[in-house]
Amino acid sequence: MGSIRGNAVIGQSGGPTCVINQSLVGVIEEAHKSPIIENLYGALHGVNGIMNENFIELLKENQASLDRVAITPSAALGSVRKKVTPDDCAKIFEVFKKYDIRYFFYIGGNDSAETANIVNELAKSANYELRTFHIPKTIDNDLLVTDHCPGYGSAARFVGLAFMGDNYDNLSLKGIKINVVMGRHAGYLTAASRIARQDPDDAPHLIYVPERAFSEEKFLSDVQNVYDKHGRAIIAVAEGIADANHNPIGATNEVDSHGNVQLSGTGALGDYLSALVKKNLGSKLRVRADTFGYLQRSFPGCISEVDAREARQVGRDAVRFALAEDQDGSVIMKRTGNGANYAIETALTPLKNLAKNTKSLEDEYIGENANDINESFLDYVLPLVGEIPNLGKLQKYHLRKQQ
Amino acid sequence: MGSIRGNAVIGQSGGPTCVINQSLVGVIEEAHKSPIIENLYGALHGVNGIMNENFIELLKENQASLDRVAITPSAALGSVRKKVTPDDCAKIFEVFKKYDIRYFFYIGGNDSAETANIVNELAKSANYELRTFHIPKTIDNDLLVTDHCPGYGSAARFVGLAFMGDNYDNLSLKGIKINVVMGRHAGYLTAASRIARQDPDDAPHLIYVPERAFSEEKFLSDVQNVYDKHGRAIIAVAEGIADANHNPIGATNEVDSHGNVQLSGTGALGDYLSALVKKNLGSKLRVRADTFGYLQRSFPGCISEVDAREARQVGRDAVRFALAEDQDGSVIMKRTGNGANYAIETALTPLKNLAKNTKSLEDEYIGENANDINESFLDYVLPLVGEIPNLGKLQKYHLRKQQ
Repeated sequence: MGSIRGNAVIGQSGGPTCVINQSLVGVIEEAHKSPIIENLYGALHGVNGIMNENFIELLKENQASLDRVAITPSAALGSVRKKVTPDDCAKIFEVFKKYDIRYFFYIGGNDSAETANIVNELAKSANYELRTFHIPKTIDNDLLVTDHCPGYGSAARFVGLAFMGDNYDNLSLKGIKINVVMGRHAGYLTAASRIARQDPDDAPHLIYVPERAFSEEKFLSDVQNVYDKHGRAIIAVAEGIADANHNPIGATNEVDSHGNVQLSGTGALGDYLSALVKKNLGSKLRVRADTFGYLQRSFPGCISEVDAREARQVGRDAVRFALAEDQDGSVIMKRTGNGANYAIETALTPLKNLAKNTKSLEDEYIGENANDINESFLDYVLPLVGEIPNLGKLQKYHLRKQQ
Repeated sequence: MGSIRGNAVIGQSGGPTCVINQSLVGVIEEAHKSPIIENLYGALHGVNGIMNENFIELLKENQASLDRVAITPSAALGSVRKKVTPDDCAKIFEVFKKYDIRYFFYIGGNDSAETANIVNELAKSANYELRTFHIPKTIDNDLLVTDHCPGYGSAARFVGLAFMGDNYDNLSLKGIKINVVMGRHAGYLTAASRIARQDPDDAPHLIYVPERAFSEEKFLSDVQNVYDKHGRAIIAVAEGIADANHNPIGATNEVDSHGNVQLSGTGALGDYLSALVKKNLGSKLRVRADTFGYLQRSFPGCISEVDAREARQVGRDAVRFALAEDQDGSVIMKRTGNGANYAIETALTPLKNLAKNTKSLEDEYIGENANDINESFLDYVLPLVGEIPNLGKLQKYHLRKQQ
């Protein structure tokens, strides 16, 4: 069976990243070249845009706009957090048939892969010829199969640089500093703080990821040990840390439509841990907490060039895969070289492989005391974040005290 | 009276900035060229380093280290927050005499200018020949006399870019977003959020600076109006906002040695305002708060090139002024051209002119409803922040719904 002539729809879903629009522009560029994609409709706010027939004509966009949009963080089509119901899917088909949609591109995380998969399965069972492609994005880097996710490199760069700066800040005015990093279940982004440790006594001195149960007692003892050794402590904590009974530490009670508790957009966890340290280790200690918040996913000032390039490529390749033969799937990246020879190639994997489940930070990267990230993680993460500025300290030739 | 041959001391004081080390390296570079500065001692942690005779020999540092230090945020010599007492000053003189210190360079804000002034006055009354130079730095931009302060441009760039990114984040997933910006008394840094508003409906939609009394009622009504109009709201709030009776909104109780209440390093204000909005405007609203925190003063990923260059220059010129004739003072910047012709020149002003008091954001820049910053502020701030990326939106050619 050859390629179907018809229209295409693209939507963006889930939390923003700094490069999700690179993927969008990659799809638009490649669709322009295609002889069989007649129109490329952008659905505003994901599946909601489809159901409401709220479409824009993306092939009419001029190049100057696309160039600006490509470097603009967040979802230019608008995003959505929505679990599709059977009724929603019925509605989506109605719309797809009505608009002769034969290609469906959906940029998002695992929830989006699941949505794409449900829609695709429904199309198959209805004998509706549809080719569905999930284009991965997430700063959490928690999608299965793919080596890493577009969006992660830029967020990891932000976190790494933030800890580098904070290391020097804290060296100049010593104290205990807690930085809360995004990541509900996966510790990849928190682990990226490890980039900052260039000398053995550099921050972060302690790193807590959601893959390990968080014990307040152990935490306090860890902080005391670091403080005794360095006279200061910078601590990276994932927003999703939970105790051995899976109770989140210091979270609020708001939940989204996927049943996820609100962790971001509040300083609650950082302030909770701050108070815990002061109460137990000494009320006169200088203890501060910063919650990096949405800056991690949408700060336009330090986007990773590697990440931007790859995000563009997965968008382009989604269209190439769509036109090559009768197939559906998620576009994934395989690492074909590392270090100075870092390279990736893209491939297609069935939608169900990325849907529903997510990946955790690999055990090999997590320190045996559950409070650090091993150096081997740097081999994984450094190629993704782009060039890191060469910061440094004075050599400090101490003057002997005069008598 | 000509220049005195002898040794020099330099210290850094107060909160870090991204370019305070540029000023340090500027002083070192220029001291290297001077025939009469025999040694340049770096005091570790400001006046504490002087009192404890904790010095390093800065003219021994190699160029590679200095190049790295120059681009490294925060104070390479270590900083201090300390009000000097008469006893401290007596101790400082003892040390200055002992080490034949004839030049004292102190990089810091108005507290540091005050410290420098006290030390200098004490030297004069003791007939000790000392030339004291205060080199300004502060992300708050609140020093008198100077057009702006080294450190401000980079922090303003960070804040402007952060709001640009957040504008797009919030466009894709709409809601009410509160961002808390550093600034205890001066609204300059919060006002820099105004850079992000490139289209009339762009963020920030509301800006609250400490120069105006903050009313919770007025705030809630402002937010409701913006939300009704845009279906979303991004709000910039200075950490130092206070009500008409000067009671800070949502602050903690910790104070530093200058008697200043802790505002940074906690998410308390943002979370307080978030809860206020939810309680009064609707508990189902998506309300989030981010507190930008220390990232504003020490994030190494997006330093303003203009700011870095000027910070280097004020350091160099401090030494030039020191050697030119018998004088003391703060090095200030005058703006000699603006817009495309932006330029500054440095000058010297008596230390007492910058000591103690600080500057507030000028009335002309604050909107008449006390909830916005006027466009005229952009003429002031844009030359300081460096090039802003050209972000943008899709043109959005809407497809007519098919029947």
